[in-house]
Amino acid sequence: MTQRAIGLGIVGLGRAFTLMLPTFQADRRIRLAAACDPLASVRARFAQDFQAPVYEDVAELCADPDVEAIYIASPHQFHAEHVALAAQAGKAVLVEKPMAITLAQCSQIVDIVAQTGVPLIVGHSHSFNGPVLHAARLLHSGQFGPVRMVSALNFTDFLYRPRRPEELDTAQGGGVVFSQAAHQVDIVRLLLGGLASSVRAHTGQWDASRPTEGAYAALLSFTNGAFATLNYSGYAHYDSDELMEDIGEMGQRKAAGTHKNTRLRLAQTNEAQEAKLKASRNYGGTDYQAPAATPPQHHQHFGYILVSAQQADLRLTPDGLMVYTGDERYFVATPLSEIPRVEVIDELWSCVREGRAPVHSAQWARATVEVCLAMLASNAQRGDIPLHHQVAAHLAPQA
Amino acid sequence: MTQRAIGLGIVGLGRAFTLMLPTFQADRRIRLAAACDPLASVRARFAQDFQAPVYEDVAELCADPDVEAIYIASPHQFHAEHVALAAQAGKAVLVEKPMAITLAQCSQIVDIVAQTGVPLIVGHSHSFNGPVLHAARLLHSGQFGPVRMVSALNFTDFLYRPRRPEELDTAQGGGVVFSQAAHQVDIVRLLLGGLASSVRAHTGQWDASRPTEGAYAALLSFTNGAFATLNYSGYAHYDSDELMEDIGEMGQRKAAGTHKNTRLRLAQTNEAQEAKLKASRNYGGTDYQAPAATPPQHHQHFGYILVSAQQADLRLTPDGLMVYTGDERYFVATPLSEIPRVEVIDELWSCVREGRAPVHSAQWARATVEVCLAMLASNAQRGDIPLHHQVAAHLAPQA
Ligand SMILES: NC(=O)c1ccc[n+]([C@@H]2O[C@H](COP(=O)([O-])OP(=O)(O)OC[C@H]3O[C@@H](n4cnc5c(N)ncnc54)[C@H](O)[C@@H]3O)[C@@H](O)[C@H]2O)c1
Ligand SMILES: NC(=O)c1ccc[n+]([C@@H]2O[C@H](COP(=O)([O-])OP(=O)(O)OC[C@H]3O[C@@H](n4cnc5c(N)ncnc54)[C@H](O)[C@@H]3O)[C@@H](O)[C@H]2O)c1
Repeated sequence: MTQRAIGLGIVGLGRAFTLMLPTFQADRRIRLAAACDPLASVRARFAQDFQAPVYEDVAELCADPDVEAIYIASPHQFHAEHVALAAQAGKAVLVEKPMAITLAQCSQIVDIVAQTGVPLIVGHSHSFNGPVLHAARLLHSGQFGPVRMVSALNFTDFLYRPRRPEELDTAQGGGVVFSQAAHQVDIVRLLLGGLASSVRAHTGQWDASRPTEGAYAALLSFTNGAFATLNYSGYAHYDSDELMEDIGEMGQRKAAGTHKNTRLRLAQTNEAQEAKLKASRNYGGTDYQAPAATPPQHHQHFGYILVSAQQADLRLTPDGLMVYTGDERYFVATPLSEIPRVEVIDELWSCVREGRAPVHSAQWARATVEVCLAMLASNAQRGDIPLHHQVAAHLAPQA
Repeated sequence: MTQRAIGLGIVGLGRAFTLMLPTFQADRRIRLAAACDPLASVRARFAQDFQAPVYEDVAELCADPDVEAIYIASPHQFHAEHVALAAQAGKAVLVEKPMAITLAQCSQIVDIVAQTGVPLIVGHSHSFNGPVLHAARLLHSGQFGPVRMVSALNFTDFLYRPRRPEELDTAQGGGVVFSQAAHQVDIVRLLLGGLASSVRAHTGQWDASRPTEGAYAALLSFTNGAFATLNYSGYAHYDSDELMEDIGEMGQRKAAGTHKNTRLRLAQTNEAQEAKLKASRNYGGTDYQAPAATPPQHHQHFGYILVSAQQADLRLTPDGLMVYTGDERYFVATPLSEIPRVEVIDELWSCVREGRAPVHSAQWARATVEVCLAMLASNAQRGDIPLHHQVAAHLAPQA
């Protein structure tokens, strides 16, 4: 690396930051330059840990000349506003999924990127996972013939993890459609080329004490004739990581009884304390555990994903791809970096330092949010929702 | 068994009969009384094996007073006609799935059953499998709270097994929607209570040399608010029996490379010979292998099936049910009979000898055919197809 590290300012020192911190710390292309959070305690911790300035207000962070790019990891409903501040200050942007919670907000972000010319990528999302990008590259190369179908299934304890109140309110971006379909749809779109044409979906609100979508089943069709089923339960007793060799979403070997323990822990708290419980386990919280220094042993994943092309079926695993063809079944390992989620920094670097166009651009992410919103609309209207903002996936050839 | 065995007449000594023969031979409640098939060679073989009369014509079989019930295993497109002949002769009927290939034919069967009062059940289908009935009984008992969602996935080599020409012509009942969704839909309906309200589906015709549906993805909704994704590929390179402990559809331990071998074998034949190849492996054919005498080691199954109820997820296995609840995960074995597909004879016996109403009645089967037809219509019309002939599942309490 001959070029200098990207000076990164953080907006929102919560769970998402906690999950990205091991990446930022391990990747020499990133230097933590500053942070902003309304919470004084985490600001103080950040200032101490990284000897870097901290701000109460996003506008102040954006004014810091030492900050070259901004990672926006505030709650969804603030993303549009925070992206606008960052872009107007000329900063490159890495904004968490979902990019925003309305189509109008997404279009606002698309416009502001066009006007300011700042690089913007949307992530982390699990479509950055090595095996997903690997499968997409192979499929897009055409070596297996046209893509036909995807089956995606994920059964998690999402709804019973400790949540902020907004996370349980669909109007504010709560529920699994905004938070989890944002991953699954992004993956499916990437594998099938990106241009979804319509969505039919059912969503489930099965727990009155957590009144938002906790499950869904969706049927997506694409302009190239491909289609996909997406199935998600965040109420799950079953753990679909059984299908992923008992490797969890973060690429970790999974202890037994995770879902059960999640429910038990929640049962021991009350509504008022729940948001605090979430915060306590995040960076700077009382129960925060700094990430282990051991590099990842597996890729992160988002459940069971099976893609059918004309001449092969591909099943994504935590280590790569199982390829099934007419003749044989073989495993192709996806190279694993010592840096978790390195693919996010790869893409950020290629945009910020090499001037390349992002894969996970604002247009790309708007298309994914459009599908998520269409899932909610389809459930409400009991019919297909046509899509109008879809864009094709443009993967750079493998480095 | 104090009552006499049911004298069963067979219509169609082909593949379906070949698969049911081990059942008929093992179950003392059945006596093979006569058979009918246009093919002289298989008739001769049947006459010799079972010392029973054989007929060229269905009407003649129906006139045989020694025949009390008729198993109709002729090609789909003849089912309605053959059921009418049997019912008018006052015979009880076991008719293969799909019951018929149009809604009009199905309604004709429903009417004729009502008029004649003959017992009629539709099967075998995989909704008779022990673990399916077991799961349905547990779910319908309410012990896990309301049913919510099913995920069903099956990847097979269906389209590359040797076929009669009609089996590759949708207009004549060909393709996986008629032959395979008939199983998967029946299972899903049984688990979720039966009353589907609408269907959205995509079907795939991906091989011009076999111009019928070979794959589908469907989203079903139910009047009780439950919904399901059904996913099937009969073009598969992948074998979803991987998810079923490498136990195949017939409950057998599966040899590696099944799908590959199916394709290779087909590649070595031509269109003209293909129907002959199919027949050669059936009962009476040159390559026919009489079933092994060993009793089944596992239940038959139709791929991966995961049902979510409010308080538990149930995963069907070849041996029973894996139940996942908030507290624990436990396996409930489904008792296995020495007789394969014994559940079909259980239901036939309960109707014919005990005067009970069938679970897999003509109305029940019409509702399943309606869903299959709606899948084709939904793909053509690109929208939801409402359903009007659905009936609720009525399972007898466990014996
Ligand atoms: N990609 C992933 O794996 C992943 C994981 C978790 C969350 N996320 C995403 O990250 C975002 C945040 O979710 P979270 O779970 O980290 O929430 P969180 O509540 O854990 O963290 C949010 C943080 O933002 C801070 N904040 C609130 N308002 C702010 C403001 N106006 N300015 C600056 N900071 C503010 C909060 O104090 C908190 O520290 C969401 O969009 C979510 O979808 C992504
Ligand atoms: N439940 C199952 O597991 C299963 C498996 C295979 C087939 N099936 C069903 O069984 C039915 C038959 O399919 P198959 O695969 O056995 O086909 P097949 O071609 O193997 O057998 C059909 C048999 O019917 C005979 N036949 C044709 N016309 C007839 C007539 N007019 N009268 C009497 N017999 C006639 C043929 O000569 C042949 O022997 C279909 O409805 C199919 O869906 C069910």
